[in-house]
Amino acid sequence: MPYALCYINNRFLPYAEAKLHISDLGLQRGYGIFDYFLEMDGKVPFLDDYLDRFYRSGVLTGLNVPLEREMLKEKIFWLLGQNGLRNSGIKLVLTGGCSEDLYTPPSTPNFMILNLPVSHKPGEFSEGVKLILLDYVRYMPEVKTTFYFPSIALFPKMKATGAIEVLYHHNGLISETTRANIFLVRKSVLITPSPGVLQGITRKHVLGVAKDLLAIEEREVRLEELWECDEVFITGTSKHLIPVVEIEGRTIGDGRPGKWTRVISGKFEDFYNQVISDAPAGLSS
Amino acid sequence: MPYALCYINNRFLPYAEAKLHISDLGLQRGYGIFDYFLEMDGKVPFLDDYLDRFYRSGVLTGLNVPLEREMLKEKIFWLLGQNGLRNSGIKLVLTGGCSEDLYTPPSTPNFMILNLPVSHKPGEFSEGVKLILLDYVRYMPEVKTTFYFPSIALFPKMKATGAIEVLYHHNGLISETTRANIFLVRKSVLITPSPGVLQGITRKHVLGVAKDLLAIEEREVRLEELWECDEVFITGTSKHLIPVVEIEGRTIGDGRPGKWTRVISGKFEDFYNQVISDAPAGLSS
Repeated sequence: MPYALCYINNRFLPYAEAKLHISDLGLQRGYGIFDYFLEMDGKVPFLDDYLDRFYRSGVLTGLNVPLEREMLKEKIFWLLGQNGLRNSGIKLVLTGGCSEDLYTPPSTPNFMILNLPVSHKPGEFSEGVKLILLDYVRYMPEVKTTFYFPSIALFPKMKATGAIEVLYHHNGLISETTRANIFLVRKSVLITPSPGVLQGITRKHVLGVAKDLLAIEEREVRLEELWECDEVFITGTSKHLIPVVEIEGRTIGDGRPGKWTRVISGKFEDFYNQVISDAPAGLSS
Repeated sequence: MPYALCYINNRFLPYAEAKLHISDLGLQRGYGIFDYFLEMDGKVPFLDDYLDRFYRSGVLTGLNVPLEREMLKEKIFWLLGQNGLRNSGIKLVLTGGCSEDLYTPPSTPNFMILNLPVSHKPGEFSEGVKLILLDYVRYMPEVKTTFYFPSIALFPKMKATGAIEVLYHHNGLISETTRANIFLVRKSVLITPSPGVLQGITRKHVLGVAKDLLAIEEREVRLEELWECDEVFITGTSKHLIPVVEIEGRTIGDGRPGKWTRVISGKFEDFYNQVISDAPAGLSS
């Protein structure tokens, strides 16, 4: 990993040497967006979904991605080919650039493509995980900004309670967790918060595979519904589907991964594997 | 300026060479706090107020300032002495450090002291400025986090309207602007929002000099009160007091800087100059 390459501002260089001047507005003012997706056997499932979202984040925030889509894909696959990590993560980060007064955005942003080992594996949390709660709403929830301060500041509480994510709620409604979307199952209905959440790519495809199995409600979800439902799971790029068995010390359902969670997870994994096997090899191969 | 020194992680180095590895959590996850104050003729007015706030920000967010106060002062004044900028800004920035997985905070933070030229001068905006509005509440408003994304993304609108700051409001209440506290004057009463705002050092001393002049109300302030009051001004470290004559296209009072604003501003400038003249010279002189 220390020898892996990354890409910064039109240059490939070893990750260990990847530095930015401290006048970067991502660092000084939190003015940055990103996206993150996985490479599996040299392929990148749902790559266009992720790039759609990344370019849209840029448009919504005034940050212009300095590479056109085809050129960006070319850089990504060249990097993957060089690094040869196999089953790795790709993170795109775009910041406001280096600012003379540490405040006013310059005309040139800073843009990087990072290629990192994956820390979680699907199935790792199949016995179910715990969440904790935080009264918080992300700014522009449809955008993947780099602002994770509220949940990172809760690391000590997460460690103490064994929770892996923080679930945000505000004005009595839940939205999403630190790095995942949330789903509830109650009486064979699949419920997930909308609007006011990141449009997760895994969320989208889970809804796709679930729609033939049970009724779906995308709507505002009250915090109290967590205590009345049968099952809860979260979805994310690295996580796929993870059952949730406890939230802020309260047991969800019967405290074990639910049967619908298992069924939907199985369907999603089948779909995911099919997508990978159908996908053309990357541009570099 | 390119030759000025700064301090990063126990090392003094030229600002132009001040870089951090891109795994820094301030950059990747917005996990950073800062503070900012001015040097005037080699002295730093209200230094202990600013340091109190910076250390408190650290305690509230789990970020530990790696230098004790006296050592920190010593570094600051050594830097000021070396740079000799005269009337400059000092910015302290503390981030979660460089993280292997770009998420989990390591045990060692990144800490820097920057010494920069000042871009605004007191009195520059004495004819009054414009603000625009944004429905937004800062996370942990008592802490100076680095997250300025919402207002920086509004730069194009600020430029188009000639506004210099964004005033935040939520649920019908106003709080503060991007980089300043706000005050209203109505019928000889000075009103300023509290709680839910940054405890500005200039705010504190403005309240101090104003309390013998007129009645003061620190309380929740409704957005509508802006349209019913006689005067509005904002306060900040670089700005001191600046009259506000227009907010989101609506004229405040009679559209000119108010008489109480002028009186309080005069009192504050007298106090400020007295503090500087009374202050002992910095440790380096």
